[in-house]
Amino acid sequence: MQGQNQQQAYDRGITIFSPDGRLYQVEYAREAVKRGTPSIGVRTDGGVVLLVDKRISSPLMEEASVEKIHKADNHVGIASAGHVADARQLIDFARRDAQVERVRYDQPIGVETLTKDITDHIQQYTQVGGARPFGVALLIGGVTNGEPRLFETDPSGTPYEWKAIAIGEDRSTVQGYLEDHYDESLPLDEGVELALRALGEIRESLQPEGVGVATIDAETGAFIELSNDEIREYLVEHDLLGDETAGDADDADGADDDATEE
Amino acid sequence: MQGQNQQQAYDRGITIFSPDGRLYQVEYAREAVKRGTPSIGVRTDGGVVLLVDKRISSPLMEEASVEKIHKADNHVGIASAGHVADARQLIDFARRDAQVERVRYDQPIGVETLTKDITDHIQQYTQVGGARPFGVALLIGGVTNGEPRLFETDPSGTPYEWKAIAIGEDRSTVQGYLEDHYDESLPLDEGVELALRALGEIRESLQPEGVGVATIDAETGAFIELSNDEIREYLVEHDLLGDETAGDADDADGADDDATEE
Amino acid sequence: MQGQNQQQAYDRGITIFSPDGRLYQVEYAREAVKRGTPSIGVRTDGGVVLLVDKRISSPLMEEASVEKIHKADNHVGIASAGHVADARQLIDFARRDAQVERVRYDQPIGVETLTKDITDHIQQYTQVGGARPFGVALLIGGVTNGEPRLFETDPSGTPYEWKAIAIGEDRSTVQGYLEDHYDESLPLDEGVELALRALGEIRESLQPEGVGVATIDAETGAFIELSNDEIREYLVEHDLLGDETAGDADDADGADDDATEE
Amino acid sequence: MQGQNQQQAYDRGITIFSPDGRLYQVEYAREAVKRGTPSIGVRTDGGVVLLVDKRISSPLMEEASVEKIHKADNHVGIASAGHVADARQLIDFARRDAQVERVRYDQPIGVETLTKDITDHIQQYTQVGGARPFGVALLIGGVTNGEPRLFETDPSGTPYEWKAIAIGEDRSTVQGYLEDHYDESLPLDEGVELALRALGEIRESLQPEGVGVATIDAETGAFIELSNDEIREYLVEHDLLGDETAGDADDADGADDDATEE
Amino acid sequence: MQGQNQQQAYDRGITIFSPDGRLYQVEYAREAVKRGTPSIGVRTDGGVVLLVDKRISSPLMEEASVEKIHKADNHVGIASAGHVADARQLIDFARRDAQVERVRYDQPIGVETLTKDITDHIQQYTQVGGARPFGVALLIGGVTNGEPRLFETDPSGTPYEWKAIAIGEDRSTVQGYLEDHYDESLPLDEGVELALRALGEIRESLQPEGVGVATIDAETGAFIELSNDEIREYLVEHDLLGDETAGDADDADGADDDATEE
Amino acid sequence: MQGQNQQQAYDRGITIFSPDGRLYQVEYAREAVKRGTPSIGVRTDGGVVLLVDKRISSPLMEEASVEKIHKADNHVGIASAGHVADARQLIDFARRDAQVERVRYDQPIGVETLTKDITDHIQQYTQVGGARPFGVALLIGGVTNGEPRLFETDPSGTPYEWKAIAIGEDRSTVQGYLEDHYDESLPLDEGVELALRALGEIRESLQPEGVGVATIDAETGAFIELSNDEIREYLVEHDLLGDETAGDADDADGADDDATEE
Amino acid sequence: MQGQNQQQAYDRGITIFSPDGRLYQVEYAREAVKRGTPSIGVRTDGGVVLLVDKRISSPLMEEASVEKIHKADNHVGIASAGHVADARQLIDFARRDAQVERVRYDQPIGVETLTKDITDHIQQYTQVGGARPFGVALLIGGVTNGEPRLFETDPSGTPYEWKAIAIGEDRSTVQGYLEDHYDESLPLDEGVELALRALGEIRESLQPEGVGVATIDAETGAFIELSNDEIREYLVEHDLLGDETAGDADDADGADDDATEE
Repeated sequence: MQGQNQQQAYDRGITIFSPDGRLYQVEYAREAVKRGTPSIGVRTDGGVVLLVDKRISSPLMEEASVEKIHKADNHVGIASAGHVADARQLIDFARRDAQVERVRYDQPIGVETLTKDITDHIQQYTQVGGARPFGVALLIGGVTNGEPRLFETDPSGTPYEWKAIAIGEDRSTVQGYLEDHYDESLPLDEGVELALRALGEIRESLQPEGVGVATIDAETGAFIELSNDEIREYLVEHDLLGDETAGDADDADGADDDATEE
Repeated sequence: MQGQNQQQAYDRGITIFSPDGRLYQVEYAREAVKRGTPSIGVRTDGGVVLLVDKRISSPLMEEASVEKIHKADNHVGIASAGHVADARQLIDFARRDAQVERVRYDQPIGVETLTKDITDHIQQYTQVGGARPFGVALLIGGVTNGEPRLFETDPSGTPYEWKAIAIGEDRSTVQGYLEDHYDESLPLDEGVELALRALGEIRESLQPEGVGVATIDAETGAFIELSNDEIREYLVEHDLLGDETAGDADDADGADDDATEE
Repeated sequence: MQGQNQQQAYDRGITIFSPDGRLYQVEYAREAVKRGTPSIGVRTDGGVVLLVDKRISSPLMEEASVEKIHKADNHVGIASAGHVADARQLIDFARRDAQVERVRYDQPIGVETLTKDITDHIQQYTQVGGARPFGVALLIGGVTNGEPRLFETDPSGTPYEWKAIAIGEDRSTVQGYLEDHYDESLPLDEGVELALRALGEIRESLQPEGVGVATIDAETGAFIELSNDEIREYLVEHDLLGDETAGDADDADGADDDATEE
Repeated sequence: MQGQNQQQAYDRGITIFSPDGRLYQVEYAREAVKRGTPSIGVRTDGGVVLLVDKRISSPLMEEASVEKIHKADNHVGIASAGHVADARQLIDFARRDAQVERVRYDQPIGVETLTKDITDHIQQYTQVGGARPFGVALLIGGVTNGEPRLFETDPSGTPYEWKAIAIGEDRSTVQGYLEDHYDESLPLDEGVELALRALGEIRESLQPEGVGVATIDAETGAFIELSNDEIREYLVEHDLLGDETAGDADDADGADDDATEE
Repeated sequence: MQGQNQQQAYDRGITIFSPDGRLYQVEYAREAVKRGTPSIGVRTDGGVVLLVDKRISSPLMEEASVEKIHKADNHVGIASAGHVADARQLIDFARRDAQVERVRYDQPIGVETLTKDITDHIQQYTQVGGARPFGVALLIGGVTNGEPRLFETDPSGTPYEWKAIAIGEDRSTVQGYLEDHYDESLPLDEGVELALRALGEIRESLQPEGVGVATIDAETGAFIELSNDEIREYLVEHDLLGDETAGDADDADGADDDATEE
Repeated sequence: MQGQNQQQAYDRGITIFSPDGRLYQVEYAREAVKRGTPSIGVRTDGGVVLLVDKRISSPLMEEASVEKIHKADNHVGIASAGHVADARQLIDFARRDAQVERVRYDQPIGVETLTKDITDHIQQYTQVGGARPFGVALLIGGVTNGEPRLFETDPSGTPYEWKAIAIGEDRSTVQGYLEDHYDESLPLDEGVELALRALGEIRESLQPEGVGVATIDAETGAFIELSNDEIREYLVEHDLLGDETAGDADDADGADDDATEE
Repeated sequence: MQGQNQQQAYDRGITIFSPDGRLYQVEYAREAVKRGTPSIGVRTDGGVVLLVDKRISSPLMEEASVEKIHKADNHVGIASAGHVADARQLIDFARRDAQVERVRYDQPIGVETLTKDITDHIQQYTQVGGARPFGVALLIGGVTNGEPRLFETDPSGTPYEWKAIAIGEDRSTVQGYLEDHYDESLPLDEGVELALRALGEIRESLQPEGVGVATIDAETGAFIELSNDEIREYLVEHDLLGDETAGDADDADGADDDATEE
């Protein structure tokens, strides 16, 4: 009970340190990330794969509107886990940032540069009063000078570079699968397969409508989103396609759910 | 009791995260939406239907003044559920936004663009201190390049696209009806019928004065509000018209009610 | 007791949502309206009637200074119930707004336009921090293009249009009387009679000094306040005039009363 | 005890509504007025009389420095009850306001106009955060176009016009005397007598040094403060002069008193 | 205990009214004045005397640096009791104010004008949020047009004029002595004697180093500080000089004292 | 329990003093430093060595992205311990500061000047409200006019100069080792060895991927980061290289760890 | 316990008065001074001596970087006790202030003028909200027109002038020694001896590295810091030099100490 009280003291008002040097508001924002449906990033020699799990709360919802994968520029894609509306703010920030680079220097923004601009922006919301931290983590994948790059941003505003990573719900299970099966030399399509299989670890079955996939090819450097048909092909080929009726039934139960963490 | 106390800690002052990563002020704003009378949107190949349920607290109130359906531009309508005065702010925002698009680019604003501008605006009120979130959800229906579109905005600032959707009181019952009977290929007038029948699920009878209907036809792309006579025709034709005296009696009881969630 | 505590949590500091989606500060501001002496509006084909009940705390107070009826422009009058000083701020806002319309567009402001400008202003005080809501409701009556209009504004910033309405103390009794006896086709002077009789329902007797009446004639479109003599004529004619000595005695008791809700 | 707690919740921070629609900070500011020594205003056909009771805490204090009566302009005087330093701010505001009128329009400011400018100023301090209400009531007396006017402002920012009024300590006793003996047709000097006798109701005896009197004559329209000798003449003539030694003894006891409400 | 709690509620955050209409922060600022060593002002026909008691916490402290008497302009001196650093801010304000008068109007500022400018400044700190009141009282003595004037300012921002006054520690004893022995017609040097004798009432003995004296002569209108030798002469002449060794011993005990109220 | 409560009082809202003169928010920020993985600085006649310990939470994380060593300018490097995102803000500040010096004065910024600019910036966040202190300590190493300099900045904004220093986790063990073995005359490569051995005191074994090393040579004055191969050579040469498989296993356990203190 | 609670009420948020007229935040800032290592100032006819005690937390720390003595201008030195980072802000303020004087008036700033500018700056932080007081006391020594001056500033913003003074830890013991042995006519080098002996009262032995000494000679008016060798000479000559090994051992124990009060 006392621990309870003590902790509460540090999450009110502005973001401040607790006696053991922690920033509770930032840690709670990370909980918002963990409540979100998972997103996965895989970087191979062939390029970067971004894969997102979509929670469709009703069969009448347009799955395309469940935004979890975004094109930030021709050569950069961003996937998110956590508070969707917060993610959209950061995506807008990223797009403007990329555009400014093109206008000023007539060149595509570096993936690392873009990531660090975003994390600087996020950090401000953890130190200066009058606002709360962003409740979202991003996976930023792209190609700079022919080299595939994959970064993660967390609610504290720290950037990390990864070979392969999962964020959101059931993160450790998915990450464990990636660690066991990752191979840097995979061609891009096998990177997609790896990501789908990793997601399959925590889902009984997968539906094309419940999954979003985008790739940035190392050679072309172009961000491409896969169509539902292309995703279905992958699922069929690798025997991951689930029973679609069952999925729908499950959706209907969740029709009244307000969750905005995805 | 302790849960009670703990929760209270996160709804005071500015909008901050709770230990499990939730934003209580946003969730409470959603409760304001649930307290509102229902609004329904149906998108078919023929266009978009917006239908609202009006709570008239006295027979002396002008039903036209219970604003729940708004013309945002020639080709876009907006229905709301929740805090009426908040809805009016967002409608004003939407109208200015549409007008700016016309002036700057000499073209009607895209329905999706408009929706995202509105959700960006809503999100700001959930992150920056000194204000509360908007206690209202919107249904934004319109036609872009001949294609009907129907979006929802929620108090977190997340946009969703729907084939058919209900917001407000008794949402799940109405949404269930829509899921069971929705058919994308319906002509526009059968879309109106579907929406009326869905509302009928939670009302013993319907009165023309208690219902507002607007359509945006896919071909003409024009926002049109139905007159009471037109609504009465629908109700008679589909045997949904209630006993008007009974309705009035019910209104009289509510004469002293201050509710502004509609 | 717990309900007590829980409620208190939501009325401090800025205006925020309670767990059930309510804005307590706005609801408390409505209580300030209910504490005010009643005001009545009646709209007939002949024009609009505004009637106010004045609480004179001492026979030495100039009754004309108990401001509850205001001329906003030549064609618009405003009556209030609730916190008097707040009402005066909104009247000032309305007058400036009407004047700007005249200067910019060389035409009288529409009654509906004026009402919505005022409610937008009121809503701001319920959403942005650093201020409290307005503790007053207004009845805005006027004539636009020969058509009589009667609107109400409430502390949430919601506008409603009415055929006839009462606000303030004992609202439901007065509103009940209006609902039972209202007839849209009444000539303007019978509208005045209806309003006086409705007030008579909650007063043992009426005095000319305790009542204020203004009309906006549909034909002339002019705001006119009735003199005490004219009001006395109405009271005598309709047998509503009370015993003046009794009234005075009652006032003397209230001499030390500070109430500013009227 | 619970009532105690509940009430406390509404007087901290900014001025907000209580559940029953009251503004406690404004009501507490009225208590500051009631703690002040009384001031009296009397308006007759002959002009306006302002009379103030001075609390001299030591015989060594210059009674002229106990400021309770102020000349706002040649034709307007202001008396106060409550927090002296707050009164001085409002007097300064009034003087500037009157001067601006003279400079802009080359005419003396109307007494009613001046009063309403002051009450608008006062109201702001009750609605916008970051400040407390003014803890003072004013009596504003003057002559506009040959007509004597007497207004009161209270801490809520509401203006009232009076024939005769008392504010401050023991208000109801003094006001009762005024109500019983007031006669609008009195010449100005009998107005002074009435005010002195009303004050005599709550004082065992009066001293010229303990009383301030000013008049604004309806004909000349000039604000004039009476000298101690002139006041003594009134007191002697009407047998109201007290035993001066007794008064001094009483002062000495209060020498260590810090009260700034006068 | 409850009274304790209730009171605490009104001294946090900004300065607000208590239920009985008091401003606790202002009253507590007065306590800071009462904690200060005494200052005395005496006004006679011959001029104004300012006398201050200095608390020297160590024999190594330069007594001249214990600033309690200040020259605001050639013709005005200011003595203080209470929070020394606050006093210095007000002295700076006074000096700038006097200088502006000289530059703008080429004349010495009136003592009353200067006092009221200072009290207006003080009042602001009691009404507007984000700052605390000044914890100091001032005695402002000077000559305007050959006439000696002596004013007091208190933490509420109220100005008073006095013939003779004491502020600070043991105020009522010193003030009682002044009331018993004051004579307006005293020559200036007897005014100094009166002030010294009044201080002697609360000190067993006086040392030249522990006392500061300044005079403003009515004829010359010049502010003059007395040297230690001149003060010693007065003390010797009137048999008020104490045993200096005893005083030192007392100082040594207080060497570790941090008090800044003097 | 009481101590608990008392302490809590001083860590909320802005940074304020506790009764014993401490700034808890600053002390808690120091705890964030102690939670970070260690960083070590060694200054010898040959130059400055910066060494950092990297916590890699998954074998899929790119170790290069765990930023703990930064090049601030050609001649200055900065290592950090504590909150990574905060460190990045200070690094950005340092780089801009160094660049301004080059642009304005056409010379490299002095290491001491740079340090003091940074500590001034840090101090602001401990005194002015509306923000929290920086939760990070920096080691700033560089060469000015051929002289090696090594500074530490702490969360209070105090600069210290060191011959050799450890910050972060297990600080005292590492510092103890440095104190026992430090020799100012060491050549630069032996400085690297000393730093590695000091870190070895608290790690069972070291991996090239888990360690970052940079040097600034006194002669060339150039900041150089060692490659993994170069680090491996050091480790092999001095028999410090650990069993790499064991390290990986340890990483896998920490895969779900969110810590941003490094 | 109650006293505990009551006190807490006055140290949160902005600096406000307690019921007995104290400013707790200022008093707590003084505690920060008392936690600092001592600094001593001695003024003789020959000039001013500033002496500081340095706490070296590790033998690897550069003692020169423990900044407790600063040159503010050619003729002014400043020593501090308390929060080091706060002291640095005030030193910067002092240097800018001195430079402005040189640029504007082409003359060295007066020591008293400089002191009062600094104390005005300090006072602001005790009255205006949004910041905490400075947790440091300064000794400001210098020569103006050939005259040596020595001032102290405390956290309330009060300036005092001294012949000799100690601030910080064990103040009263050191001050007692100074009071017993001070002689104004000492030559400057004997002033240094006096200061060293005073410090020796609270230290078992002194090391040149643990002491800082600066002088401002009355004749040359130049600020000069003594080298370690010069200090050692003094210590040897007056038999004050301690056993250096013992000192080191003591330092090692304190290696993990974070204290920033020095």
